[in-house]
Amino acid sequence: MLAGTEDGNITPIWAKMTAEIVTIGDEILTGHTVNTNAAFIGERLTEIDCRVLRETAVGDDVAAITAVFREALARAEVVIATGGLGPTHDDVTRTAVVEAFDRPLAINHKVRESLEAFFAARGRALDKINEAQALLPAGADFVPNNVGTAVGIHLIEKKRHFYALPGVPAEMRPMITDHIIPFLKTLSVLKTAHGVLYTTGKPESKLYEMLRPVLDKYPQVKVAFLPGFDGVKIQYSAALGTLEESERALNQWRADTQEILGNVIYSETEGGVELVIGSMLQEKGATMAIAESCTGGLIAWRITEIPGSSEYFVRGYVTYSNESKSDLLGVDPGVIEAEGAVSEVVARQMAEGARAGSGAEYAIAVTGIAGPTGGTADKPVGLTYVALAGGGATVCRKYQLGTDRSTNRQRASQAALNLLRERLLGVV
Amino acid sequence: MLAGTEDGNITPIWAKMTAEIVTIGDEILTGHTVNTNAAFIGERLTEIDCRVLRETAVGDDVAAITAVFREALARAEVVIATGGLGPTHDDVTRTAVVEAFDRPLAINHKVRESLEAFFAARGRALDKINEAQALLPAGADFVPNNVGTAVGIHLIEKKRHFYALPGVPAEMRPMITDHIIPFLKTLSVLKTAHGVLYTTGKPESKLYEMLRPVLDKYPQVKVAFLPGFDGVKIQYSAALGTLEESERALNQWRADTQEILGNVIYSETEGGVELVIGSMLQEKGATMAIAESCTGGLIAWRITEIPGSSEYFVRGYVTYSNESKSDLLGVDPGVIEAEGAVSEVVARQMAEGARAGSGAEYAIAVTGIAGPTGGTADKPVGLTYVALAGGGATVCRKYQLGTDRSTNRQRASQAALNLLRERLLGVV
Repeated sequence: MLAGTEDGNITPIWAKMTAEIVTIGDEILTGHTVNTNAAFIGERLTEIDCRVLRETAVGDDVAAITAVFREALARAEVVIATGGLGPTHDDVTRTAVVEAFDRPLAINHKVRESLEAFFAARGRALDKINEAQALLPAGADFVPNNVGTAVGIHLIEKKRHFYALPGVPAEMRPMITDHIIPFLKTLSVLKTAHGVLYTTGKPESKLYEMLRPVLDKYPQVKVAFLPGFDGVKIQYSAALGTLEESERALNQWRADTQEILGNVIYSETEGGVELVIGSMLQEKGATMAIAESCTGGLIAWRITEIPGSSEYFVRGYVTYSNESKSDLLGVDPGVIEAEGAVSEVVARQMAEGARAGSGAEYAIAVTGIAGPTGGTADKPVGLTYVALAGGGATVCRKYQLGTDRSTNRQRASQAALNLLRERLLGVV
Repeated sequence: MLAGTEDGNITPIWAKMTAEIVTIGDEILTGHTVNTNAAFIGERLTEIDCRVLRETAVGDDVAAITAVFREALARAEVVIATGGLGPTHDDVTRTAVVEAFDRPLAINHKVRESLEAFFAARGRALDKINEAQALLPAGADFVPNNVGTAVGIHLIEKKRHFYALPGVPAEMRPMITDHIIPFLKTLSVLKTAHGVLYTTGKPESKLYEMLRPVLDKYPQVKVAFLPGFDGVKIQYSAALGTLEESERALNQWRADTQEILGNVIYSETEGGVELVIGSMLQEKGATMAIAESCTGGLIAWRITEIPGSSEYFVRGYVTYSNESKSDLLGVDPGVIEAEGAVSEVVARQMAEGARAGSGAEYAIAVTGIAGPTGGTADKPVGLTYVALAGGGATVCRKYQLGTDRSTNRQRASQAALNLLRERLLGVV
């Protein structure tokens, strides 16, 4: 959903430069590989005001690739292609570049030397197959590859910039962020400012209602609400006469928005609420534990994806059976019998048991019916209780989530982490 | 890596029908949304011998969409577009269809009735905005939508089939699998047979070496090795004179391959090794528990993603701190002191402690240095021990994984689950 644009389209108000992205490889067309390269490049180009006109995926076929290159160059000022640059026979991008630009290949000595150094460092000599990677079309510059052996190709023709990069994301991404984006930025005057607010705990419709006055007050700020399992990401941008003007408008917009949303916003950078919690716990020198039933380890996994989480995360209990809830967390078997494992009192006892057993300052607990089966008229699939012990009185929240097992588990994990965040903020 | 093709390209031996996929939406071009729709459709089309020539993503712009439709229809026999079919103002696909085909819109009464029924079931009357979704180009058929209100549009012109579908995956996917694929199958004679073998525990290069004789023996079978964190997926296909011939060749190929790879193959269907383990445990009426350090809940989460896993999974211990390893699993603190938490003896004690504490027949345990920090010269990042208790003597395997935290955790979880699978098979 987009707000702040008159006709609902993302009008190219920032469009100084136009670009197209070409992804090469049969594995994309057959659906074996999802095209994350195009999304990555699209996002980086959008950040520097470059408007992406089209993304095209094409197979490992010289004629088809050549045609796509020509068509893209006829429409856009910048064309970035990924894939098919390796040393094996199905890597035909180089040939297509030669065809599309009608320039012969020649050994680039700087690239050849770097390849020799790469193999020497691994105790090997440069062989013929890999030497071919030093072949560049006449007049081409190269983009260094610090991870693998395939350098990127950069050609300029009629003021249009063409790049061919390897398809391996770990090799392609630094080429984009460290070389191509900084270079493209020098070609145009940046006028657009951007930002993101990560929110959780309120649905898109509610956020929209709350922000209606701000959206009306700043029609020059373009706002998009992007909902996910973990909350709604609010993207905002402005493209006024100069970058400074744009930034000034966004600062005002952001201040007004923050005043309305308060701690519904948990971050302005990527990384999830688990990263925010981690920083808060480290700042307080506090520790946490987790007791999970329906989420089955998901919350602990999210917490421990953060490097250094061992400093504040001490343990998790995945108490799937009723017996394990009593055994490990001291949940009263009589209470489970009387109220059921999915109940407020069990969630509270789980959180308190995890806190007491682990010695952590804070413990969160989740019990719910993830589905698809296990629901009753009384306790339907999606019923979920999230509890927190520590830092004050134990609190518990009840949710009626949906019918999809995996989604319910994701949403429950977010609700539990957010409850801890709110306690750490002192607002619950 | 592809084998069984002479020039390494995926030659269109199966190509009876050609297709293009068009994805519509600014959110794709700006990288906010990864284009999973194209991958899904590409995979379904490939399964029915339809060769995808190109995938194009374009923004919410009528002129650009119209141009892409025309170009795609000039190249391919089937064009499937997704996105921009909703009731809001930035949904402009319908207009582009009218432009590209030069056919006026008219209310389709069958669609109108189904919309009325949809809203009536929700206690609402059909409003003007939603009524517009019953507008179809003259002569168009529709593809029903059982999830939302936007029906798909199906147009036939010069024997070419054009589809416009909503972009929401939950709405689009059943339209493809339940309506479009069955229909397209009737348009051509299927000659290609396909299959997949899911393997784990051997790298791609090793599998290739092992299968070399089979690859040479059956040059008509095309084989692709697709490595991932969880093992290598081997896709194979044959396109001979008839479907029966293709299937016969694949049956022979598969029998030979199975003889060589044995239980390195864990499945011929999707769902992961966790699904296979679940079935085996249910068959035996046995239960399992998990003790995790570096994987931090990932293994428990994978196991509990399977509906009905509560029948065999009783509990998991996420013992991140040393204290929790001793407390919950009875790991000897002196051993942790002497050998370190990442050691074979600790992994064994974790597995045995989890088994004893839970009363489960089987318990798996993982301890390792996930990274990026925490490694030493003696115990580098990536060092991981995986242990299994139950069903015979406790076993432990040592792995030296890589340097990426998240990847190491994924690979360790797979190694642990595979160890349990091998014990359940009686081969370890």
